[in-house]
Amino acid sequence: MLSRLIPQRTALSARACGLQWRQMAVLSMDSLPKTVVDAEYAVRGAIVTKSMEFEEQLKKPGHGLPFKELVPCNIGNPQAVGDTPLTFHRQLISLLSDPELVNSPKTADLYPKDVMERAKTFLKMNAKMGAYSHSKGVRGFRDVISEFIEKRDGQKCDPESIFITNGASDGVKTALELCVADPTDGILIPTPQYPLYSASCTRLGGTALGYEMVEDYSSGEGWTIDTAVIQSQIDKHKATGAKVKAIAVINPGNPVGNVMSRKQLEEVVKLCEKNGLVLMADEVYQDNIYAAGKEFISFRKIAYDLGAKIELMSFHSISKGYYGECGIRGGYMQLENIDPAVTDEIYKLFSMCLCSNTLGQAMMASVVSPPVKGEESYELFEKEKNVKLDALKRKADFLAGALNDIKGVRCLPIEGSMYAFPEIFLPKRFCEEAVAAGSSPDGVYCMKMLEATGVVTVPGSGFGQKAGTWHYRITILPKEDMLKSVMGNIKSWHEGLMNEYLSPGETIPF
Amino acid sequence: MLSRLIPQRTALSARACGLQWRQMAVLSMDSLPKTVVDAEYAVRGAIVTKSMEFEEQLKKPGHGLPFKELVPCNIGNPQAVGDTPLTFHRQLISLLSDPELVNSPKTADLYPKDVMERAKTFLKMNAKMGAYSHSKGVRGFRDVISEFIEKRDGQKCDPESIFITNGASDGVKTALELCVADPTDGILIPTPQYPLYSASCTRLGGTALGYEMVEDYSSGEGWTIDTAVIQSQIDKHKATGAKVKAIAVINPGNPVGNVMSRKQLEEVVKLCEKNGLVLMADEVYQDNIYAAGKEFISFRKIAYDLGAKIELMSFHSISKGYYGECGIRGGYMQLENIDPAVTDEIYKLFSMCLCSNTLGQAMMASVVSPPVKGEESYELFEKEKNVKLDALKRKADFLAGALNDIKGVRCLPIEGSMYAFPEIFLPKRFCEEAVAAGSSPDGVYCMKMLEATGVVTVPGSGFGQKAGTWHYRITILPKEDMLKSVMGNIKSWHEGLMNEYLSPGETIPF
Repeated sequence: MLSRLIPQRTALSARACGLQWRQMAVLSMDSLPKTVVDAEYAVRGAIVTKSMEFEEQLKKPGHGLPFKELVPCNIGNPQAVGDTPLTFHRQLISLLSDPELVNSPKTADLYPKDVMERAKTFLKMNAKMGAYSHSKGVRGFRDVISEFIEKRDGQKCDPESIFITNGASDGVKTALELCVADPTDGILIPTPQYPLYSASCTRLGGTALGYEMVEDYSSGEGWTIDTAVIQSQIDKHKATGAKVKAIAVINPGNPVGNVMSRKQLEEVVKLCEKNGLVLMADEVYQDNIYAAGKEFISFRKIAYDLGAKIELMSFHSISKGYYGECGIRGGYMQLENIDPAVTDEIYKLFSMCLCSNTLGQAMMASVVSPPVKGEESYELFEKEKNVKLDALKRKADFLAGALNDIKGVRCLPIEGSMYAFPEIFLPKRFCEEAVAAGSSPDGVYCMKMLEATGVVTVPGSGFGQKAGTWHYRITILPKEDMLKSVMGNIKSWHEGLMNEYLSPGETIPF
Repeated sequence: MLSRLIPQRTALSARACGLQWRQMAVLSMDSLPKTVVDAEYAVRGAIVTKSMEFEEQLKKPGHGLPFKELVPCNIGNPQAVGDTPLTFHRQLISLLSDPELVNSPKTADLYPKDVMERAKTFLKMNAKMGAYSHSKGVRGFRDVISEFIEKRDGQKCDPESIFITNGASDGVKTALELCVADPTDGILIPTPQYPLYSASCTRLGGTALGYEMVEDYSSGEGWTIDTAVIQSQIDKHKATGAKVKAIAVINPGNPVGNVMSRKQLEEVVKLCEKNGLVLMADEVYQDNIYAAGKEFISFRKIAYDLGAKIELMSFHSISKGYYGECGIRGGYMQLENIDPAVTDEIYKLFSMCLCSNTLGQAMMASVVSPPVKGEESYELFEKEKNVKLDALKRKADFLAGALNDIKGVRCLPIEGSMYAFPEIFLPKRFCEEAVAAGSSPDGVYCMKMLEATGVVTVPGSGFGQKAGTWHYRITILPKEDMLKSVMGNIKSWHEGLMNEYLSPGETIPF
């Protein structure tokens, strides 16, 4: 629904340019592949575009906006909202960028000894950061990553099963590319989900089968997955003669912030085994666990524990966790039980763009092998890490509480990842007005919130949500004082909205 | 033809693993999208795979190979064959990676003043290298790039028309993605070509229409394009009711090393204007011009000069030129006369992977705005640049000469880019044996060359070539003494091959 806002905007800009290409252009909205036009990607949609306009407007004196600054809570982008990078990894990247620094006497005491040592080790693995690497990534870096995976899961990991990528997105896109061979090929995608999945599936011309993340305020289990329901969806799709190829699972969850229990993870693996599904395990938030008693367990470990020989593709990234190095672009995809001939095809696809950026590759290897006790950087590293993780935990608790403190808003505990996905009650008249204007009610809600408070969020319709419910996604990332002020502003604005739109006799259910 | 070598190799590795997935796998060669399997990408194909095996073998004592080291001449990857990065750009990236260096008194005299100043300027444009940037790239960096384009072409350039990408490949892939909406949609691609074009076109399910690069040893014009022939190809394809959407032109040429004249460039622009074609201008070698009297002129300048309002997408990169920063992954795509609604769709496609890596973005901006006279880094920069460009020019001349010095090999002058694409005569019996083994004769030639000399090249069949002719691509990049020894080895090996295969009465035509 939200996508309807986009054509309106582009139609305007097209008009401004005089429409001269309309008559003769090879490339127009009519000539583009339908799957390109149909793909929806809300995280950077109409609301972000509006926020960029506001950004320019705010620079002008007497800008007339009711807020002083924008707070981008639309995207898991920690450094955009004041987070600072970890010293150790950045010192390393700095040394790798200019290897002269490693050997120059001028810089002998520039950095701690262990950073210097790691730079030397990494340069031995790949002396030429400016050369294309192996299309899977530098072998030495893949060795480091495989050691991390082995230690994490207690199971051997072949470095040849790893592809280092420009962030996790590249890997996810490529994995989906392999699974969609036919328009009826079904990919099970959570609802709500991270929109890369649905957008890629649409672009590839496949069938996205949304499975519901169950939002349960009574059981105390938070957001859960009901594999019995998914099984019936699979049966139904197969009954049409079509295939169900894969299931994507995001754990810890985006946008809903859940952390799956061992029992749930096992159910998913068994579902894959029973139905012959590729499991796409999006585990980029594996270091973002906040809820007491919750822990991250990889799907890979579960599959090994169960002895389940499922086809598994797991994704990790340098962009999340307590490292948050989104802009450097690093990630990896790790394969289990994938036909070597298929792995060769993946290699071919990646080799078409030669390799991922080598500094991001190095950062990925460094993120999974942080300084250890006894090394010079260890104390500072641990301190920086714990400050970040402690703050994230406090903010997760605070945000869920502050949301639940608003009448007409409710939110399950934020157990992990970087987001809350609160449910919002919207008055009948508000919904009718939005629909009449060709927009989704939650889209209008988020746009109005932006206009009134400067807080950028993403409407639930950008992720998918249970029919008849409205949500939005907001990150826990702004600094704590900022987050407190944000929630204060949202609360007063929301209450004003309710007063404005609530019809006589209409009650707010939560 | 060469691709036949790949299934053989993968079949072997599949056997080695016991084939257990064959029975149950979701992902197999049979289930993958046909367009994935069909896409061919020779630059990193069977010969590179064999060279990686040799690389491991060479580490063992008594390896039994007839050479001491591999010489990777298969890919334009300067730093892999001994080229060193430019000091200025690397110092900048180092400072951007660790902004502490910019302000610390400890490092006040670490780098020249102008590098420090540029780091400060770039950090003002984007203080958060670790945050996702705008999906088009940091606006300040796009401003720098647009100034470069304006100065180069003498024509205004809108920073909003620029997308900064992870190398040029990402841009090329996305551009093709817009043009192929229907299996009959034709994309004109040079033959020979850089295989990203054909592989992407195949993957997208479009129709690649190869237009011949004419190899003429008599006119003195080198490799040329015959637009009259292309026009008849367009007419022929259109006569089937299908569309011809775009033409890709690589200037300076890859793999053939030509530099197009103003007359040829004008002919291409007029062809696009007449037939309504999107022009994809691959200009990543714009700083690699060696032939006397030749100069680089951008298609954008030509289009403005002619007043031709064609839809134009131009590509540039940090990977080539005299900078050769392949591993950092930076590039840009610049759009002219593209419908703003289509530009918004491109933005959406790029935003699905959030942004290109910020350090590569900064490098792209830096590469197009090198130090100027009066700045502290200027002299060293100019010296490093000229040493590189002079050596490239000498190597281009030497390589063409050395190839022509071999009986059965001939090569047109290497006017620009980083490659020679010599024609080779192959004896009848050699060709018959290759075909009987299910391989292309030039593929077997390059494999045998690798086995005998350690020199890695790419067979002409990986790029496309005129039927009945055989070629290979070899880079001019190894250091000069290395290149001399390479050519000596190739010459003796080639002569041995001729002696072995030449039938009585068979003559070598050149």
